[in-house]
Amino acid sequence: MTDTKAVAPGLLTGVKVLDLTQFEAGTSCTQVLAWLGADVVKVENPSGGDPGRRTGSTKPHKDDPYFLNYNSNKRSITVNVKSARGLQIVKDLAKKADVFMENFAPGAIERLGLGYDVLSEINPGIIYGQVKGFGEGSPYEHNLAFDMIAQACSGLMSITGEPKGRPAKPGATLGDSGTGMLMCISILAALIKRKETGKGVHLQVAMQDAMLHYIRNSFCLTTKTGKPAPRAGAKNLEGNNPPCDIYPCAPGGPNDFVYVYTSRGNPQHWPKLLEAIGRKDLIGDPRFETREARVENSAEIDRIITEFTSKRDKYECMRVIGAAVPAGAVRDTLELLNDPNFEERAILQKIQHPAWKDFKMAGWPVRFNGSPPPVKPAPLLGEHSAEALKDWLGMNDAQVTALRDDKII
Amino acid sequence: MTDTKAVAPGLLTGVKVLDLTQFEAGTSCTQVLAWLGADVVKVENPSGGDPGRRTGSTKPHKDDPYFLNYNSNKRSITVNVKSARGLQIVKDLAKKADVFMENFAPGAIERLGLGYDVLSEINPGIIYGQVKGFGEGSPYEHNLAFDMIAQACSGLMSITGEPKGRPAKPGATLGDSGTGMLMCISILAALIKRKETGKGVHLQVAMQDAMLHYIRNSFCLTTKTGKPAPRAGAKNLEGNNPPCDIYPCAPGGPNDFVYVYTSRGNPQHWPKLLEAIGRKDLIGDPRFETREARVENSAEIDRIITEFTSKRDKYECMRVIGAAVPAGAVRDTLELLNDPNFEERAILQKIQHPAWKDFKMAGWPVRFNGSPPPVKPAPLLGEHSAEALKDWLGMNDAQVTALRDDKII
Repeated sequence: MTDTKAVAPGLLTGVKVLDLTQFEAGTSCTQVLAWLGADVVKVENPSGGDPGRRTGSTKPHKDDPYFLNYNSNKRSITVNVKSARGLQIVKDLAKKADVFMENFAPGAIERLGLGYDVLSEINPGIIYGQVKGFGEGSPYEHNLAFDMIAQACSGLMSITGEPKGRPAKPGATLGDSGTGMLMCISILAALIKRKETGKGVHLQVAMQDAMLHYIRNSFCLTTKTGKPAPRAGAKNLEGNNPPCDIYPCAPGGPNDFVYVYTSRGNPQHWPKLLEAIGRKDLIGDPRFETREARVENSAEIDRIITEFTSKRDKYECMRVIGAAVPAGAVRDTLELLNDPNFEERAILQKIQHPAWKDFKMAGWPVRFNGSPPPVKPAPLLGEHSAEALKDWLGMNDAQVTALRDDKII
Repeated sequence: MTDTKAVAPGLLTGVKVLDLTQFEAGTSCTQVLAWLGADVVKVENPSGGDPGRRTGSTKPHKDDPYFLNYNSNKRSITVNVKSARGLQIVKDLAKKADVFMENFAPGAIERLGLGYDVLSEINPGIIYGQVKGFGEGSPYEHNLAFDMIAQACSGLMSITGEPKGRPAKPGATLGDSGTGMLMCISILAALIKRKETGKGVHLQVAMQDAMLHYIRNSFCLTTKTGKPAPRAGAKNLEGNNPPCDIYPCAPGGPNDFVYVYTSRGNPQHWPKLLEAIGRKDLIGDPRFETREARVENSAEIDRIITEFTSKRDKYECMRVIGAAVPAGAVRDTLELLNDPNFEERAILQKIQHPAWKDFKMAGWPVRFNGSPPPVKPAPLLGEHSAEALKDWLGMNDAQVTALRDDKII
């Protein structure tokens, strides 16, 4: 079923992406371009390649699932960019590229001799993207950053966690992938403009800055209150519209909860919720009639809902309550990975990789005329060195062999 | 300084977006298109408009900061789409549009008579985007969803919070804005393809499905362990590379912490950290020499780092430790909003809105040749009804007045 449903939209067929990214912030961006049909050629050092290949706890020489998730549908070539001939190859590739993308430590790509000034001279039409931890002009612009540093410095951790607990890191790697998505949008918009002007552009985004984009609601709250936005556990930050929380379900495991919410915009939600949980008798009870009353009696509301949810499993709660008002089971990653519905809809797709048979991973979740793009396995290190050098630079076998013999590729 | 730095890239000049979105998942998508230069015309009902205008606790008739954050740079027109003439106006606008976007409850736009089948007949080149809570073919496809429901059902809450605590909701509204970004990418890629084919496309994304995209690392962990990914507080999910946590700083407020991390990829980080915190004496100590040893003695590592951090404020800790290894202060939203550096770099921009003077908000964080797009205030309800109907449909004053008199707009 997956195979028939996942058909390439090929929206970006013909777009050449020269990919010097590693780990996640940059790779997540070029990953999307590859899914959408671009020819993404990932340049890796011959001695190990992207450190993301071995970031996890798997044994050496087996590409980690982490790498598979951010590099599917790409081609890999190895080039020793610290050799003069290797550097020249990357410049030759840049001459052919529509998009260049990197996320090395601050200053590293410029020290390699592949800065925007150099590549835009070689190819004035190049769209040159860079992801860093902190922005130019920030007091920390020369600092290293990883996902968690961006989440800490951007306010995101300060608004995540229990009200009386410590700041928590959202499980999503928003500092990396969240930033990568904003860069991807900017690259695509630049490609549209370039069709008109022929001119490239220098794109830069900082992970810290990108996080502000995703927590705009917390800034709204601060504007109104003059105070830092709080942590609110599972609730909404404003927390003034109960019920809006998770409620414990049977059998009481760490993720046996159901989220129950009644929209402020829909006054019918509260009586519909009461009906769903068999408490029609409370419809019209002045303790709960208005939002203000519900705020005042929120402890009693929590007790009433818990009485219903704690006797049922989370899926039954979601089915019964979710038919009336917004409600959702808190699902864990194993439940999701094993849920056949995601594979049937090709939201999760199975790929065959030499190191991981039947490896299930999330593809691009947007449907194009009903179908998602198909996921192809991430490349082995240097798997496409010969093929890509022939395609992009017109090299012949002898030239490729010579480069291999001289350990340039 | 802001004014000079924020210059329009105008990448999408000439792209017409017909915006029937509300709240955030759809509006965040069209917000980006507007920032990047598209002409986004937001169609709202004349009796109040987008419920996001009054979602917060501000008094009626004053647009909430929430609305301002997701609708800047757009134009607003009011149309009563439940009248035949109003519906026809929306169809006429759709005929001129490059992009149509909506995020109503499941089935609502089709019941209005503005489904993909109808609009693609009128305009075969239209790129028609829809955001829903659950995907077509999901058992919950007819259910309502809001941001928190998507976060609950997608695994995101299960991996956020303290290890022994309940699931927590990330403070970022990833269910809404995170989904909006994936739709935005798909729209732009479709615009690129359409230059070639002239054909439009039907784009659909579900908030639940979109969340899987942002938590791929947790699925990697589940693939390797066969277990649900855990909650890890402020740590990384794998949690096997200490130090990787937040450490308390003076004076001990709720967000007085500094994140400290040493990259697995860089064995020099550990000795550099020891040097930064004045503990060169511990360099070479076998209790901490390898990653395995540090896992075993992580409690002692935490004690050593805390001894340093607890006597200094978080900014000093970030300055000193961050110069050596990845480190970052946990900042709150008030500190960020008041930090002049973000305004100097136009990451936060000040706008003048009739209801909110000097309103500071986050703009698009990506730089184009060094500059970000400028933010313009969100429109008042129906502010551009006449102007946009003249621009898009060539109406004259008399026609607009007649529509107003008949309460169609």
